[in-house]
Amino acid sequence: MIKAGLVGATGYTGAELLRLLLAHPQVQLAVITSRAESGRQVSEIFPWLGGHLDLAFQAPEPKNFQACDVVFFATPHATAMHQAPALLQAGIKVIDLSADFRLQDAALWAEWYGERHVCPELLSEAVYGLPEANRERIKTARLLANPGCYPTAVQLGFLPLLEGGLVEPRSLIADAKSGVSGAGRKEAMATQFCESADSFKAYSAAGHRHLPEIEQGLAAANGGPVDLVFVPHLAPMIRGIHATLYARMREVEVDLQAVFAQRYQAEPFVDVMPMGSHPDTRGVRGANTCRLAWHRPQGGETVVILAVVDNLVKGASGQALQNMNIMFGLPETTGLSLPALAP
Amino acid sequence: MIKAGLVGATGYTGAELLRLLLAHPQVQLAVITSRAESGRQVSEIFPWLGGHLDLAFQAPEPKNFQACDVVFFATPHATAMHQAPALLQAGIKVIDLSADFRLQDAALWAEWYGERHVCPELLSEAVYGLPEANRERIKTARLLANPGCYPTAVQLGFLPLLEGGLVEPRSLIADAKSGVSGAGRKEAMATQFCESADSFKAYSAAGHRHLPEIEQGLAAANGGPVDLVFVPHLAPMIRGIHATLYARMREVEVDLQAVFAQRYQAEPFVDVMPMGSHPDTRGVRGANTCRLAWHRPQGGETVVILAVVDNLVKGASGQALQNMNIMFGLPETTGLSLPALAP
Amino acid sequence: MIKAGLVGATGYTGAELLRLLLAHPQVQLAVITSRAESGRQVSEIFPWLGGHLDLAFQAPEPKNFQACDVVFFATPHATAMHQAPALLQAGIKVIDLSADFRLQDAALWAEWYGERHVCPELLSEAVYGLPEANRERIKTARLLANPGCYPTAVQLGFLPLLEGGLVEPRSLIADAKSGVSGAGRKEAMATQFCESADSFKAYSAAGHRHLPEIEQGLAAANGGPVDLVFVPHLAPMIRGIHATLYARMREVEVDLQAVFAQRYQAEPFVDVMPMGSHPDTRGVRGANTCRLAWHRPQGGETVVILAVVDNLVKGASGQALQNMNIMFGLPETTGLSLPALAP
Amino acid sequence: MIKAGLVGATGYTGAELLRLLLAHPQVQLAVITSRAESGRQVSEIFPWLGGHLDLAFQAPEPKNFQACDVVFFATPHATAMHQAPALLQAGIKVIDLSADFRLQDAALWAEWYGERHVCPELLSEAVYGLPEANRERIKTARLLANPGCYPTAVQLGFLPLLEGGLVEPRSLIADAKSGVSGAGRKEAMATQFCESADSFKAYSAAGHRHLPEIEQGLAAANGGPVDLVFVPHLAPMIRGIHATLYARMREVEVDLQAVFAQRYQAEPFVDVMPMGSHPDTRGVRGANTCRLAWHRPQGGETVVILAVVDNLVKGASGQALQNMNIMFGLPETTGLSLPALAP
Repeated sequence: MIKAGLVGATGYTGAELLRLLLAHPQVQLAVITSRAESGRQVSEIFPWLGGHLDLAFQAPEPKNFQACDVVFFATPHATAMHQAPALLQAGIKVIDLSADFRLQDAALWAEWYGERHVCPELLSEAVYGLPEANRERIKTARLLANPGCYPTAVQLGFLPLLEGGLVEPRSLIADAKSGVSGAGRKEAMATQFCESADSFKAYSAAGHRHLPEIEQGLAAANGGPVDLVFVPHLAPMIRGIHATLYARMREVEVDLQAVFAQRYQAEPFVDVMPMGSHPDTRGVRGANTCRLAWHRPQGGETVVILAVVDNLVKGASGQALQNMNIMFGLPETTGLSLPALAP
Repeated sequence: MIKAGLVGATGYTGAELLRLLLAHPQVQLAVITSRAESGRQVSEIFPWLGGHLDLAFQAPEPKNFQACDVVFFATPHATAMHQAPALLQAGIKVIDLSADFRLQDAALWAEWYGERHVCPELLSEAVYGLPEANRERIKTARLLANPGCYPTAVQLGFLPLLEGGLVEPRSLIADAKSGVSGAGRKEAMATQFCESADSFKAYSAAGHRHLPEIEQGLAAANGGPVDLVFVPHLAPMIRGIHATLYARMREVEVDLQAVFAQRYQAEPFVDVMPMGSHPDTRGVRGANTCRLAWHRPQGGETVVILAVVDNLVKGASGQALQNMNIMFGLPETTGLSLPALAP
Repeated sequence: MIKAGLVGATGYTGAELLRLLLAHPQVQLAVITSRAESGRQVSEIFPWLGGHLDLAFQAPEPKNFQACDVVFFATPHATAMHQAPALLQAGIKVIDLSADFRLQDAALWAEWYGERHVCPELLSEAVYGLPEANRERIKTARLLANPGCYPTAVQLGFLPLLEGGLVEPRSLIADAKSGVSGAGRKEAMATQFCESADSFKAYSAAGHRHLPEIEQGLAAANGGPVDLVFVPHLAPMIRGIHATLYARMREVEVDLQAVFAQRYQAEPFVDVMPMGSHPDTRGVRGANTCRLAWHRPQGGETVVILAVVDNLVKGASGQALQNMNIMFGLPETTGLSLPALAP
Repeated sequence: MIKAGLVGATGYTGAELLRLLLAHPQVQLAVITSRAESGRQVSEIFPWLGGHLDLAFQAPEPKNFQACDVVFFATPHATAMHQAPALLQAGIKVIDLSADFRLQDAALWAEWYGERHVCPELLSEAVYGLPEANRERIKTARLLANPGCYPTAVQLGFLPLLEGGLVEPRSLIADAKSGVSGAGRKEAMATQFCESADSFKAYSAAGHRHLPEIEQGLAAANGGPVDLVFVPHLAPMIRGIHATLYARMREVEVDLQAVFAQRYQAEPFVDVMPMGSHPDTRGVRGANTCRLAWHRPQGGETVVILAVVDNLVKGASGQALQNMNIMFGLPETTGLSLPALAP
């Protein structure tokens, strides 16, 4: 049994990690910490876990993690970078679901997150945890940077095209729609029910923090820089990301269905749908699946890729467990094979 | 391994039974039938099961069930009663999720369902599958009548009070609210998104088909007839039933928390919440749990019980599997211990 | 033209009052105040009013109201009671949409609102603004206490039965369901989209602040005290209240359709539906209408009344304008005759 | 008073036209027809209009329209083209909310709608009713083709850029999201609540019937052909269209805010928002407004325009009344000045 710790489990990614850990046969949740909720039962914060989990939040003291093999951070940014170094030094693996170790360039990180990175020397060691792009390095990772929700959907959609040199890397557009849980669990006006239900809007069109992470991943796939226009939107639903991706093809005589099918044929969590499909977000609700389809409207130069994930699962906590499975030599699908909950 | 057949899996209870069977370690789904969809892959109807289930619908021929130990009916009413006798004769157990065998009185059945019952002789043998009331008889049942969604929530809420003679049996009111999936998967105007979203209404206030089933169960608990006013409502959500139950107490010096806690202390799927709680339907989304709380407004004579279930799980398919576990001597929670999916 | 002032228009009832005032041909909005938002354009807070209203919030100084004929308070409780006396002394009429003047008993007010009332001497002068019960007194009111949303629906549903002595006044139950906007416009966890969407729950079952207000009104109709069990619920929709009311009939040989039809035949904003109807909340979305239907399940002793209002219109701001029309001698429907917005 | 007839008012655009006509001071609704519902009261189909409209559906006989000055068609496609010629001959103006007269090329129409156009000779006379592009011709139109919902949002967003030659006309992308009412009022599985709530998907990515209409309008603005990739999506909300538009700028030294502000400064129903804004669909719910904002992510070559309309108002019935006002010489905003209903 892997002994796991969890820091900051009072948000939705933390709650989802708990739900998934309950279904994982090889992990024992040893400690869960929260500065604000220390002493309270987890089920007071997340009543839906009542009866399934008899565990109280502890203070985030280093000694509380001594028995752990791995510690997950489901914290806001700029928390994990303060605590990860000590854990690594103690021989504990770290899986960070926040943004602290996703960018390899400390200056870029500082620019987007508004403060200095406190352990830039770890950025080059940190492994970006998109298994479909990076599986070999993940196997030996000590410090894993779990991808963001938008970046997972956008990268999985574009990777086959960029790796194959099939599209103009300067022409990329990602029009992405997220459920409200992507904004996290906090008291905010914009995500009040009456402010977001039965309505639709774009946000952060001028620049969203997930942009540099996506560009970094796409540049790696491309073997050179890319230009991406990324416009996120808020949809009136709880979970789910739908990325609609646009690129100009370099040549149109390509069997795109074969390209996608071959790229992902061995991937347990990427589902290339039959030609002409339109995946819906409910189809991956609660599942660690990314579902993909492509279209060439009017047979033209522009390829459209439709990619859906559950932002809390393949876009966060499910992917974190998938990475843990890889890091600890378990079968990659352990604890993650459940289908979606629909309707 | 138990070999199971499923008749009529093109509705939501059928789809949910498939989802739960995928997580059940002791059942093999051997055959699935649908007259209308014969030959099609299940995942064409329920895309969210794609990749999890490689099975095509067959015609509902008797011979297709020969290898089955148990056959589930997830059909509209008046289907199972035509096919169950032959299956029983072949030594196959039947679990009927429809209404065909829930009422013991064939005349009452005919009155509410508008046609004659074709095998009234089986009604007395059929066991009503509410394990919390009927577990011993379920163990040896050949023909199991799985309760309706409203009846499950309403009975579990009232049982401790009626069994203890604590309330006036002529004063019962059940104000029940259901998510739209309770109406089934069909093309109907009233359940179109634009007709039901962002709105709330009662329906069938003059009489709903679940009424006689509830009264039958409550009368058994009471040891005599009861009077129930039952008003169902349609809430703009996908899953979930919230029953708000009212009754006049015979004496008010009763420790209701103890009454409920003791009645259900050995029940794995009934969660009596701490005093003063208000369960929400999302807290049981996807889980086979009924969550209960009680209140005595202004310390008066009226007790209010709040009961929630997921209509597709504890209110249908999860309960069917719970019954199957009991009928086949498996631990009752096998395959059913997953927590809710929330948010 | 009536010159109106508005205090505290940063909530949903304030916004809705602005929307309705824009359609009212006889009112000029002269001043709008908010301590917190002083200096900002109204359309910064409520973007949907952009282009319709060129007005900035002012500080709530008494002198700002000098030119007003009437001042509306759309404030949290315990604000209007501090400012109303000075306005009344200056000859300005006051319409309070908050709870400050709804209860005639200052001790009861203090018990439910947790502080002393600062002008109890005004409580007897204040007129409770339910026009269907109180029209004559409203005509000459200086200080009008506008009813709460739940109380409007519950009183309009029970009034004909209590006035006629048709039901046991000790047997009343109001199972009420509200859209989330009833909780007001504030940053709260329980009303975050992800905490309230696609779910249903009761709240404040042990006692809600609208209870004494409802009991006061029902007692007046009954000519003696009543016992009411009132359980409010939160439904996943933006607007709307659906009250399902239960009472035991004293005698069952009554033509209830005639009772309701006659009681409300002259009322422009109460719509008694045809027998057997089930009103839905969307049918009154944005309209100043209360829609009513009644049922007698199984022809029994219990009568069930279904009452719907838009909590922000007939349950708040529309009713406030209706009262203003009466107080200023305008036709009662002025500016309020628009149909609902549906779907 | 203008006497108006309405054909086929059993869908959402018909219902919305009725709602708006009720608020229009210069129109009298003289006749409303529906083959299927002949004889029934309008309020039986649309209960929310109950009490506001005392009118029964008549059979769609030509003689029923004799007294009309104008007849609106709110029918599925291929209905108006059969009836319009006779009405025009009788001197009655026709405003068609369906697609029958939107395309000027009869062959293109036949290709997308799957049947021959029966009066192609009228296509050149028909005036496309986008007032912001076509006001002069609308003034004298006998036969008006009211634009579709997507085309309204997409054209209003692109027009200033194409008319000014500011973007590459071969680089246009419209990623459009619609509320479910855009699919019309019919019993269909895909728009059942449980199939579309809490989920998001693209549809018709390979080609949607609104594409040729949009391209026709954009080509006119451009003075030459354009290439448009148009991907529509279904969002879990009732009303609203959000179009996110992408184009490559020909030169980046342009004051886009000024371009949009000047283009629409005299337009009563187009609201160019302050720089950096993100319009939401609820902000135009029920209003005849198109709200626009633009962004240049990372200051790059791609301009992003955000455009929202209510698909039933500015995208259908509100625009039809706006066109009627123009055709009959009334002030253009008559009956259309109400603000949105929000929250």
